[in-house]
Amino acid sequence: MKGIIEHLIEELTRLPGIGRKTAQRLAYFIVSMPAEEALSIADAIRDVKEKARFCRQCFNITDSELCHICASPERDHSKICVVEEPSNIQVIERTGFYKGLYHVLLGALSPIDGITPERLKIRELLERLKQTRVDEVIIATNPNTKGEMTAQYLKEVLAPLGVKVTRIAYGLPMGGDIEFADEVTMSKALEGRREL
Amino acid sequence: MKGIIEHLIEELTRLPGIGRKTAQRLAYFIVSMPAEEALSIADAIRDVKEKARFCRQCFNITDSELCHICASPERDHSKICVVEEPSNIQVIERTGFYKGLYHVLLGALSPIDGITPERLKIRELLERLKQTRVDEVIIATNPNTKGEMTAQYLKEVLAPLGVKVTRIAYGLPMGGDIEFADEVTMSKALEGRREL
Repeated sequence: MKGIIEHLIEELTRLPGIGRKTAQRLAYFIVSMPAEEALSIADAIRDVKEKARFCRQCFNITDSELCHICASPERDHSKICVVEEPSNIQVIERTGFYKGLYHVLLGALSPIDGITPERLKIRELLERLKQTRVDEVIIATNPNTKGEMTAQYLKEVLAPLGVKVTRIAYGLPMGGDIEFADEVTMSKALEGRREL
Repeated sequence: MKGIIEHLIEELTRLPGIGRKTAQRLAYFIVSMPAEEALSIADAIRDVKEKARFCRQCFNITDSELCHICASPERDHSKICVVEEPSNIQVIERTGFYKGLYHVLLGALSPIDGITPERLKIRELLERLKQTRVDEVIIATNPNTKGEMTAQYLKEVLAPLGVKVTRIAYGLPMGGDIEFADEVTMSKALEGRREL
């Protein structure tokens, strides 16, 4: 018979970036935690699996029909930021800078993998723009080949709607060192220069 | 209302070494995992909290009266390896080298913190040695001040029992570089030299 700790360690190693040693450290920490705190983690995992679904408007992950961002009257409903994945929303939310809504494509164009526009939530974005008044669509797909292709495609299909379409800026990461910037980033940083 | 993902992220940051970014990565991974795998992690956490207790013989963590090591007829019951914490057992088990039993002290002597011999499972170790025939007690407390003090103390209290008492070896860590060895480790490595 294997020990229960051993079992928990094995379960934890299913998670990405959690190797055997980390899982071990976590498992013994969990054993020593107040029971209610540990059970609260277990419940949060269970909840997310039992209740998680996509927001019917923006495809963020939520446990209700509309996600907490779409449902909030405090958000600026005249702006929609388009991202590839629900997790990207967290990254933008953390900045505290953006107060608008989102639209998750659930992927990026990649014809070679069979990811055509119909496979993404683009039709739903167009529907949304037809039904509500939106001033600006900010495209925040990844700064890589697929993300760029998706941004270009969106620019084209959004053009007839007459809505302002913007793309997040490229440039040097803050706190970075010019010495270590790759050529593409550096070119983008020069190209995007602004008057001080 | 906060999102369920946001809630899971917060719960995961309770764990040691899990910062906000890692928690986020884990949470989105959990959302995308097959439900049964994720629930199996949740259950393992719940199990460990609801069922974990100390083995009545060696004080390892277990869900039964005797831990799976003490209960195994395949282990060498004539050897007892004394460790400070249940987690230390995992480290030794991973080597696959040791086939004997364990005894967990649940700490190390530290008079300054009020950790006297009575606070550790030393009396229980002596009882165990009186009741069963044991050929060797291997002291595997930490190679630091408290661990050394504990090892010395054990050596003294075990002497009258006439059992062979050994201490795990000190020396250079494998794969390490002499260049980076501290003086104490290097002295111990020299002192413990063996004929080739």
